[in-house]
Amino acid sequence: MPSILVLNGPNLNMLGKREPGLYGAKTLSDIDEMCRATGAQLGLEVDCRQSNHEGELVDAIQTSAGAFDGIVLNAGAYTHTSIALRDAILATGVPVIELHISNVYAREDFRHESKIAPVAAGLIVGLGPDGYALAIRAFAQRLNA
Amino acid sequence: MPSILVLNGPNLNMLGKREPGLYGAKTLSDIDEMCRATGAQLGLEVDCRQSNHEGELVDAIQTSAGAFDGIVLNAGAYTHTSIALRDAILATGVPVIELHISNVYAREDFRHESKIAPVAAGLIVGLGPDGYALAIRAFAQRLNA
Amino acid sequence: MPSILVLNGPNLNMLGKREPGLYGAKTLSDIDEMCRATGAQLGLEVDCRQSNHEGELVDAIQTSAGAFDGIVLNAGAYTHTSIALRDAILATGVPVIELHISNVYAREDFRHESKIAPVAAGLIVGLGPDGYALAIRAFAQRLNA
Amino acid sequence: MPSILVLNGPNLNMLGKREPGLYGAKTLSDIDEMCRATGAQLGLEVDCRQSNHEGELVDAIQTSAGAFDGIVLNAGAYTHTSIALRDAILATGVPVIELHISNVYAREDFRHESKIAPVAAGLIVGLGPDGYALAIRAFAQRLNA
Amino acid sequence: MPSILVLNGPNLNMLGKREPGLYGAKTLSDIDEMCRATGAQLGLEVDCRQSNHEGELVDAIQTSAGAFDGIVLNAGAYTHTSIALRDAILATGVPVIELHISNVYAREDFRHESKIAPVAAGLIVGLGPDGYALAIRAFAQRLNA
Amino acid sequence: MPSILVLNGPNLNMLGKREPGLYGAKTLSDIDEMCRATGAQLGLEVDCRQSNHEGELVDAIQTSAGAFDGIVLNAGAYTHTSIALRDAILATGVPVIELHISNVYAREDFRHESKIAPVAAGLIVGLGPDGYALAIRAFAQRLNA
Amino acid sequence: MPSILVLNGPNLNMLGKREPGLYGAKTLSDIDEMCRATGAQLGLEVDCRQSNHEGELVDAIQTSAGAFDGIVLNAGAYTHTSIALRDAILATGVPVIELHISNVYAREDFRHESKIAPVAAGLIVGLGPDGYALAIRAFAQRLNA
Amino acid sequence: MPSILVLNGPNLNMLGKREPGLYGAKTLSDIDEMCRATGAQLGLEVDCRQSNHEGELVDAIQTSAGAFDGIVLNAGAYTHTSIALRDAILATGVPVIELHISNVYAREDFRHESKIAPVAAGLIVGLGPDGYALAIRAFAQRLNA
Amino acid sequence: MPSILVLNGPNLNMLGKREPGLYGAKTLSDIDEMCRATGAQLGLEVDCRQSNHEGELVDAIQTSAGAFDGIVLNAGAYTHTSIALRDAILATGVPVIELHISNVYAREDFRHESKIAPVAAGLIVGLGPDGYALAIRAFAQRLNA
Amino acid sequence: MPSILVLNGPNLNMLGKREPGLYGAKTLSDIDEMCRATGAQLGLEVDCRQSNHEGELVDAIQTSAGAFDGIVLNAGAYTHTSIALRDAILATGVPVIELHISNVYAREDFRHESKIAPVAAGLIVGLGPDGYALAIRAFAQRLNA
Amino acid sequence: MPSILVLNGPNLNMLGKREPGLYGAKTLSDIDEMCRATGAQLGLEVDCRQSNHEGELVDAIQTSAGAFDGIVLNAGAYTHTSIALRDAILATGVPVIELHISNVYAREDFRHESKIAPVAAGLIVGLGPDGYALAIRAFAQRLNA
Amino acid sequence: MPSILVLNGPNLNMLGKREPGLYGAKTLSDIDEMCRATGAQLGLEVDCRQSNHEGELVDAIQTSAGAFDGIVLNAGAYTHTSIALRDAILATGVPVIELHISNVYAREDFRHESKIAPVAAGLIVGLGPDGYALAIRAFAQRLNA
Repeated sequence: MPSILVLNGPNLNMLGKREPGLYGAKTLSDIDEMCRATGAQLGLEVDCRQSNHEGELVDAIQTSAGAFDGIVLNAGAYTHTSIALRDAILATGVPVIELHISNVYAREDFRHESKIAPVAAGLIVGLGPDGYALAIRAFAQRLNA
Repeated sequence: MPSILVLNGPNLNMLGKREPGLYGAKTLSDIDEMCRATGAQLGLEVDCRQSNHEGELVDAIQTSAGAFDGIVLNAGAYTHTSIALRDAILATGVPVIELHISNVYAREDFRHESKIAPVAAGLIVGLGPDGYALAIRAFAQRLNA
Repeated sequence: MPSILVLNGPNLNMLGKREPGLYGAKTLSDIDEMCRATGAQLGLEVDCRQSNHEGELVDAIQTSAGAFDGIVLNAGAYTHTSIALRDAILATGVPVIELHISNVYAREDFRHESKIAPVAAGLIVGLGPDGYALAIRAFAQRLNA
Repeated sequence: MPSILVLNGPNLNMLGKREPGLYGAKTLSDIDEMCRATGAQLGLEVDCRQSNHEGELVDAIQTSAGAFDGIVLNAGAYTHTSIALRDAILATGVPVIELHISNVYAREDFRHESKIAPVAAGLIVGLGPDGYALAIRAFAQRLNA
Repeated sequence: MPSILVLNGPNLNMLGKREPGLYGAKTLSDIDEMCRATGAQLGLEVDCRQSNHEGELVDAIQTSAGAFDGIVLNAGAYTHTSIALRDAILATGVPVIELHISNVYAREDFRHESKIAPVAAGLIVGLGPDGYALAIRAFAQRLNA
Repeated sequence: MPSILVLNGPNLNMLGKREPGLYGAKTLSDIDEMCRATGAQLGLEVDCRQSNHEGELVDAIQTSAGAFDGIVLNAGAYTHTSIALRDAILATGVPVIELHISNVYAREDFRHESKIAPVAAGLIVGLGPDGYALAIRAFAQRLNA
Repeated sequence: MPSILVLNGPNLNMLGKREPGLYGAKTLSDIDEMCRATGAQLGLEVDCRQSNHEGELVDAIQTSAGAFDGIVLNAGAYTHTSIALRDAILATGVPVIELHISNVYAREDFRHESKIAPVAAGLIVGLGPDGYALAIRAFAQRLNA
Repeated sequence: MPSILVLNGPNLNMLGKREPGLYGAKTLSDIDEMCRATGAQLGLEVDCRQSNHEGELVDAIQTSAGAFDGIVLNAGAYTHTSIALRDAILATGVPVIELHISNVYAREDFRHESKIAPVAAGLIVGLGPDGYALAIRAFAQRLNA
Repeated sequence: MPSILVLNGPNLNMLGKREPGLYGAKTLSDIDEMCRATGAQLGLEVDCRQSNHEGELVDAIQTSAGAFDGIVLNAGAYTHTSIALRDAILATGVPVIELHISNVYAREDFRHESKIAPVAAGLIVGLGPDGYALAIRAFAQRLNA
Repeated sequence: MPSILVLNGPNLNMLGKREPGLYGAKTLSDIDEMCRATGAQLGLEVDCRQSNHEGELVDAIQTSAGAFDGIVLNAGAYTHTSIALRDAILATGVPVIELHISNVYAREDFRHESKIAPVAAGLIVGLGPDGYALAIRAFAQRLNA
Repeated sequence: MPSILVLNGPNLNMLGKREPGLYGAKTLSDIDEMCRATGAQLGLEVDCRQSNHEGELVDAIQTSAGAFDGIVLNAGAYTHTSIALRDAILATGVPVIELHISNVYAREDFRHESKIAPVAAGLIVGLGPDGYALAIRAFAQRLNA
Repeated sequence: MPSILVLNGPNLNMLGKREPGLYGAKTLSDIDEMCRATGAQLGLEVDCRQSNHEGELVDAIQTSAGAFDGIVLNAGAYTHTSIALRDAILATGVPVIELHISNVYAREDFRHESKIAPVAAGLIVGLGPDGYALAIRAFAQRLNA
């Protein structure tokens, strides 16, 4: 059964606890569960991880080669600065869909740039927690094609 | 039955005819049909239009108020320069999902900026023709919630 | 009797219908009527047009030569990007007063630049619908001098 | 009777004496008289002052609170650099119409930026000495509304 | 017989009528006639069109595929901003020579950038109406080679 | 007894009267009194001055040499533009602590730059009127060391 | 008893050992002890931590919610680049005073920008190790008010 | 008989030997011969020179006054940086057509700017070696007019 | 006898007292005396003034019309920011030589720009107090020619 | 015996496994072995480490003081953003040679800037794995001198 | 007897022949003679050279060490781009006065920057041919001091 | 026997004579001799040249094709501006190692950019005269591989 890694970066463990006006009321556990359920429905195994450490995210991407068929990556704040994540994606070769819960283009200028986007397969932005399910579905379609 | 407008901008009528390496082999008719089928499956009426004229796209957005519950907008080249489309979206109030077939962030710098993104509900980028179906599904989830 | 063209650009046909907090409650018809009334009072014929199409605005300016003694131009979103409107003004030679209902300098950065301003006779900005009447009056004074 | 302050900044005391090709032949006295006459006609008391000193202009704005219902401010060269004037306007709360006799957008780049415009009620630019009368009239309409 | 499209953009219908010091005394009809005559002399059919509407220029380029062997494109003001024209050229595949009557590099800064130039076969700039004839000749040499 | 000059720039005489949401309800007199009281407690004489005139602030700094052991300088709007104040500080050699009542980094971009900061001994920003007392205490510690 | 977290970032564990001309002769232990002593004097419990790892600093801020009433944060080099720290502060909601021992505005340009400052309560910059004590005192005043 | 100088700058002596994919297979001798033949056909004497030295190109332009009726200048790499060539053209007054064999706008950014273009009569870019013949023809037309 | 105004701006009254390594040991009195002596030697009356106030410098330039044949202007810090001084020079029409004692181009970047230079007759920079004498001599040569 | 630390940053543990066209076929183990062999030949002990974590690289540099005579640092992606590494080098004082296997100047713009280079002893760039041996040799020459 | 080198760069051999409106009617020979005469009057030997070649100017500066006590350098167009001239001045150590006949700050933007100014002793700009005599006089004063 | 060209640019003939603090005490002859000795040791013939003239450096690179197997190029000041050298390297095809004796990244900003680096095989920077020997050794390894 093909498998997908849902990888969340810094401060996403705070989801649902703070700033619900911006990020919604769902916790990261809620989202993880929704991801696994969506995957089950589409015949995909889904593994969910989170870290506040850039290096651990790099490690996770590096070790995904051979283990996962796709990565849904919400790199949070590291999206905008991390060349290391970009290089890890290039070095690993597993396709990545970049995801943001809120619409980063409606926020501060420094959130408009993504170091990851040019090496991502695609992006889903601003569609809330639903975006995770859509990204998993996109991988399902991709793997079926 | 709620209804969705799929609105395509300049040169998207050329899909499938030129540069298939970049945009895929599907024609705009293929995509329109897929959109309507996806809508039907999700209980949404889907109307599809295309124009090379910025003013006609503005007209189409203005007249969508009251007529549509959401717009999937691939504004093509006008994405990057059209403040008129942005203002039309603001003036009309119908939620818009911005869509690009190819990953614009892996292309020329001038394609990285979107005048529309800050006023869009969300974005789906680089996921190919599948992106249209995902956008319609996103509206379905939104309308159900 | 001298005559003035009041030319409104994209989305100004939405006036009074949407975002009244920003643009006020008057519709474009209300403004057109006020313009004609002000003109009548000052001995000027006033003709009012609106289009969402950049090309139609260019056409309107080109054909104003010989037909009008002045243009009150609220080019809306095209103000900030349209070199074609600028060139049309230069090619036609009819004096233009650039007008904005809201104070564009209190809004997004991209609204601070005008491609038209350097070739305009003058500007009236942020004075609401009253600005149209003041612009017509300015032409009256100019034509009397 | 409501009253308006017409406040002119550096070098406007030289009007009519130098560079008449750019600023016209009227002296500042001529303009002051015209302003008072326009005010009288519209039921407004008009007080006119000029200073070459940024600090004196700040003083004048600060002391206008309670004394004036509006300020027509041609801050001349300080328009482009004075955050102190901007802060004085914000601190005082009297509405300000920013005015320039010549079309600053047809001149050097550094004259295109105004530190005052974002906190002004509106702007009248490039309409010559007539602009002062239009600004007073704009206040009259505003006070009547 | 091979055929060439001479496509002129906004305000070029004003040629010879206004600003002759900048653009010369020839009207667009004069130039069209000269183009057809030059084509006839070189064994090329030449078709001439003009529009002030960006969308119509996009339409014209799209429909040139199969119908023309080359396009001489003076996109006027749209040269500097139109990504839609650029994309149309890429989508259509007909070779384009970009043309400007005046030397755009001796004019305002915003005329120095061309969105079209990177996808053009070549450029002829500042050589007056003669430039059209030279462009047609360049296509003749290209088609013979 | 060592002495400290508390020097306030343009519009700080408006404190407590306007925009209390941003700057608090204390007047400048309240702050001056608090400064003198804090100084008395720490064995420092404190002198307080305010001016809206850049030149007067320059004069005050120049004449502080020999008269004061430190300056707490809230230069207000001149902070961001005044090279003259910077040069006066360098020429005079009395150590300066730059102070802002509100957090300038949470406000407009032009308030983020300080021409004075590079020649200041240190900065206290955004801590409200308390900041003045902290600055005086910092000088007390410095003079004791 | 209210409590304060003093959180130091990368390379601050080297204080007193290297570059004493720039950062002074006190070690981080000296500063920690001074912080605890100042806290004790003002009725505040003070906890001191240091890490060279951005992720650990993010963890520390996240877990401070409920545990601390304020954070004195010297994020060292991460000040200038870490959006993750900024987001952690926003997500956690504990007030932060940003601190720098040296005057960063008198050093390299890249040290002038702080990603943290716009979300900080205030800043104390360039006042040496004394700055830590002043920051703790600022929290004491704040908690008393 | 009028005469034209064809002046080639650095590395153009390498034509045909290296990078034929970019610059074509013709050597500089081939081009020189073609230029002289085109000139002969049009009643123009054509003289061809090449140098890798900026100073020698300046010398050549200076001494062209009185000796030549026009210069076809391919300044190669010096196009983008040489103010000295620009000044020589201004000081000499002989009309210059700037020429590039390849389309410089489809290459690196630094090749998009020309220090010479603003003082050139016109430009021919990207039309290969044929461009030289077209430039000579342009001078022929110009001299006949 | 023709007369020259030597006008010094902010902080130049501190000359010789502070930073002698940068500005030399001569006081402003020494320089004034040297200027008058040089003038006497060349048949020119020389008047010397200094102010720290931008407005007073504007006043001094405005009143120099008819009174002086030339101005040697060391505007100090205002050189880099004062559009008011620039406008005063333009409005007054008396020729100005801009002077700096130290080489501003070897100092901070913000000292490299002069708002005055484009409207000055010429500049003398970095030649120390001798520069004043050279400037007076330049006016003498100019008045003799 | 003097000793050298060879410190590799993020993704360099992937060498030889991915993108061999860009980085070559050698693994990091191969390079480490080559480094130790080169050191042995030159009388230097060589220790090799790698981490994907910025904080661990900072730790490694801090603890190199007294333990190593030089560091060969390939900081990978952190080269371009890490002020923390720069500060660690400054704080530690051990000389560093910055190394890149590929020619970063022939790649994306963001790889052209190095935060480390200004505090490095020197750089070796683009010479492949051989660069490590050359760097060790450079330290050998330096230690012998 | 001390000696001065007057070194002129590209296109200055054209002085008096072209663009007299900008540079005056004097030829370079006239200026050379005036320089020698001024030198003779002040007890200085003056040697004058000109070259259009950057390399020859570098050679001339390098060989001036020991041979000349000062250089008056009008580097013409190379002023704005030549780091080689800057390095030659630094390597040679002979003091240089940079000179421009016209006011470069009243001309194109690219003439406002000088690569030489930061390493020059001083500058004389815009004072016409008289500037050369003033520069020689400045060296005379310097050598006497 | 393979051969290497060591090519030095402007002002490198001054090595050892001036600014030894920056560039060391070795003369260019010393370095040339060291290069030849290193080459002899590694079985490479080494030829050394220097010129202050950009054109001569271009000539030298052009004529190296077929004559040399590699070039060690210290282009000095031309490194930062010379597109002609870049083009010569591309046109010639001989591999180039770019070399700088001092660490250019620790110096002025304009020395951080290299026009040559993107087309070089690699770079050695800041390792002093030793760098030349390392570069020759790098070619030796390359030729053996």
